[in-house]
Amino acid sequence: MAMKGILYQNNRELFVKAQNNITKQSNTPLLTLKQLLKSDIEKVDELIYKLVINKIDLIPEISNHTISSGGKRLRPLLTLASAKLCGYKGSNHIDLAASVEFIHTATLLHDDVVDKSDLRRGNKTANNLWGNKESILVGDFLLGKSFDLMGAANSLDIYRILSNAAVVISEGEVLQLSASGNIEDGKEQYFTIISAKTAELFAAACEVGAVLAEKPTAEVEAIRNYGLNLGIAFQIVDDLLDYFSSENDMGKSVGDDFKEQKVTLPVIKAYKNSSDEEKAFWQRCINDGSQSEDDIKTAINYMKSHNVYETVMEKAFEYADIAKKSLEVFEDSEYKSTLIDIADFSVKRTN
Amino acid sequence: MAMKGILYQNNRELFVKAQNNITKQSNTPLLTLKQLLKSDIEKVDELIYKLVINKIDLIPEISNHTISSGGKRLRPLLTLASAKLCGYKGSNHIDLAASVEFIHTATLLHDDVVDKSDLRRGNKTANNLWGNKESILVGDFLLGKSFDLMGAANSLDIYRILSNAAVVISEGEVLQLSASGNIEDGKEQYFTIISAKTAELFAAACEVGAVLAEKPTAEVEAIRNYGLNLGIAFQIVDDLLDYFSSENDMGKSVGDDFKEQKVTLPVIKAYKNSSDEEKAFWQRCINDGSQSEDDIKTAINYMKSHNVYETVMEKAFEYADIAKKSLEVFEDSEYKSTLIDIADFSVKRTN
Repeated sequence: MAMKGILYQNNRELFVKAQNNITKQSNTPLLTLKQLLKSDIEKVDELIYKLVINKIDLIPEISNHTISSGGKRLRPLLTLASAKLCGYKGSNHIDLAASVEFIHTATLLHDDVVDKSDLRRGNKTANNLWGNKESILVGDFLLGKSFDLMGAANSLDIYRILSNAAVVISEGEVLQLSASGNIEDGKEQYFTIISAKTAELFAAACEVGAVLAEKPTAEVEAIRNYGLNLGIAFQIVDDLLDYFSSENDMGKSVGDDFKEQKVTLPVIKAYKNSSDEEKAFWQRCINDGSQSEDDIKTAINYMKSHNVYETVMEKAFEYADIAKKSLEVFEDSEYKSTLIDIADFSVKRTN
Repeated sequence: MAMKGILYQNNRELFVKAQNNITKQSNTPLLTLKQLLKSDIEKVDELIYKLVINKIDLIPEISNHTISSGGKRLRPLLTLASAKLCGYKGSNHIDLAASVEFIHTATLLHDDVVDKSDLRRGNKTANNLWGNKESILVGDFLLGKSFDLMGAANSLDIYRILSNAAVVISEGEVLQLSASGNIEDGKEQYFTIISAKTAELFAAACEVGAVLAEKPTAEVEAIRNYGLNLGIAFQIVDDLLDYFSSENDMGKSVGDDFKEQKVTLPVIKAYKNSSDEEKAFWQRCINDGSQSEDDIKTAINYMKSHNVYETVMEKAFEYADIAKKSLEVFEDSEYKSTLIDIADFSVKRTN
């Protein structure tokens, strides 16, 4: 391989940094899950690392940077955990976890170009560091690689589940783009978008673990349902934190969604019972995109006056509860109890 | 479906226009092939059309526009022809032809964003009409759909062949991006790039037809080899026409590659035996990208003085000959003779 030693070294450091970021989340069920799956996670990391090493330097540079800045690695963890929960004894869950992570990373790369984002979780985005072209093409490369990886499981069903997830995610992205800036009747569209953009990959990540373990339909559907509802809860909280989190916790500025005129649940809830004056404010800021610097403070104050934080958190807990209930069909195990804890954690987290 | 009648109407017209564009290429082996495969092609068109109809208007608008402006539809024709050449009697070649066309269309959409192209074959590009974001996301949608379509064949090998092609194409794109503007020692890189960017999908499009027909390895490899070498010949001629075609024939301006500082075979050949003065010219225009309006004329004159047209055509014929020879393992048939003619046509064409 034509990889330069120095580059390898730099990327190794990025990987170690990413590991430490996860480890910092101590006393969380994510850490518990990570400890349960320690050797599997190492294998996933090795595989990801091996696959992006490429004779074209740009590919590992951008891939590793984006994977390392990607946060919690929750999606591949779900694949590993689902396989283990279902008693899978083989090794193909490693390839599928890497595949799921590649789909997610490809989405992040293209998302950041589409949203013109400069930062993701406190790190500069790939489009910021290398450029839009590079992010688009390396995203395509990773999406292709994700399909390559699916082959390891020798299962047409697994190809179908994950390729369907890729279609649904991109439909969600396009829908979000077409829908941007429309608050009225935004609620139904909001749930359609987050189900497609976020929850579908959580669902598919879980589902393939059970399919790999050749579980009957009821259990495959149950774990898929867990993933789907966990994903919805997770995204609702993400959108809430965009208004109610400190920059330090979030790794991105409060108000990014506001600036991008995204009709997220906090906006929908704030708008719902608002005065005419407030309605005019939201229409100006979100529908028309005419914003001044102080508008984000006003937005947050309006949200506070309508108890938006509490109402939205309640909604997130509803989905987390459905996720937890979905696991009832499985026998008790440390994986089951940790997945239950993760559903709670996905709502209670502060970043 | 929430598709508007008027939109449907407009897209139908675009489709008919695209059909006519192909029909205009009368007295060509492409038309012969199209006549041989008439009912299959109609089924592919119907399937493509059905799959991009979507509740999100932007998806069929951009997809249909790009597919209709995409030119010869050569790649799906190759899949259909290869299946027929190999005696395939089923109907899954329709889905695979559509899948191949979707991979190609996704590539076009992302390519035009990366190259900032305004026109493709005389039509405005999707990024020009709808925007970059939209082109990126609809490209992702079509790539996802292409994987969905592969499922029809119930063959892991087919998934592997086409997903590998998607990876190789994106590697070629990234390599081209990294390599842009470097003439010295550009020849080897040129063939690596066109093999990946163009020829791999031609190869895979052919290969899946034979795999579908469950042909033995020798024949699968032979038809793959036909596609690969046809693709190389095709791209060499494309790159030559970028300097030696009228705008009318090409549907794009002569000199686009020159402006984009692409190190294509005509440039490599012109540079090879050039004087110091000429070398300085090429380095300024291609390596440094410092160009004035008349430079394209000078470039073409330099090429003429070094017989670049003839030398490059000779190279294209070499690859077309390898393609033709690859078909020797197959029994004589009208498909075989038409594919042989297409190899010649791919070099002799003027657009």
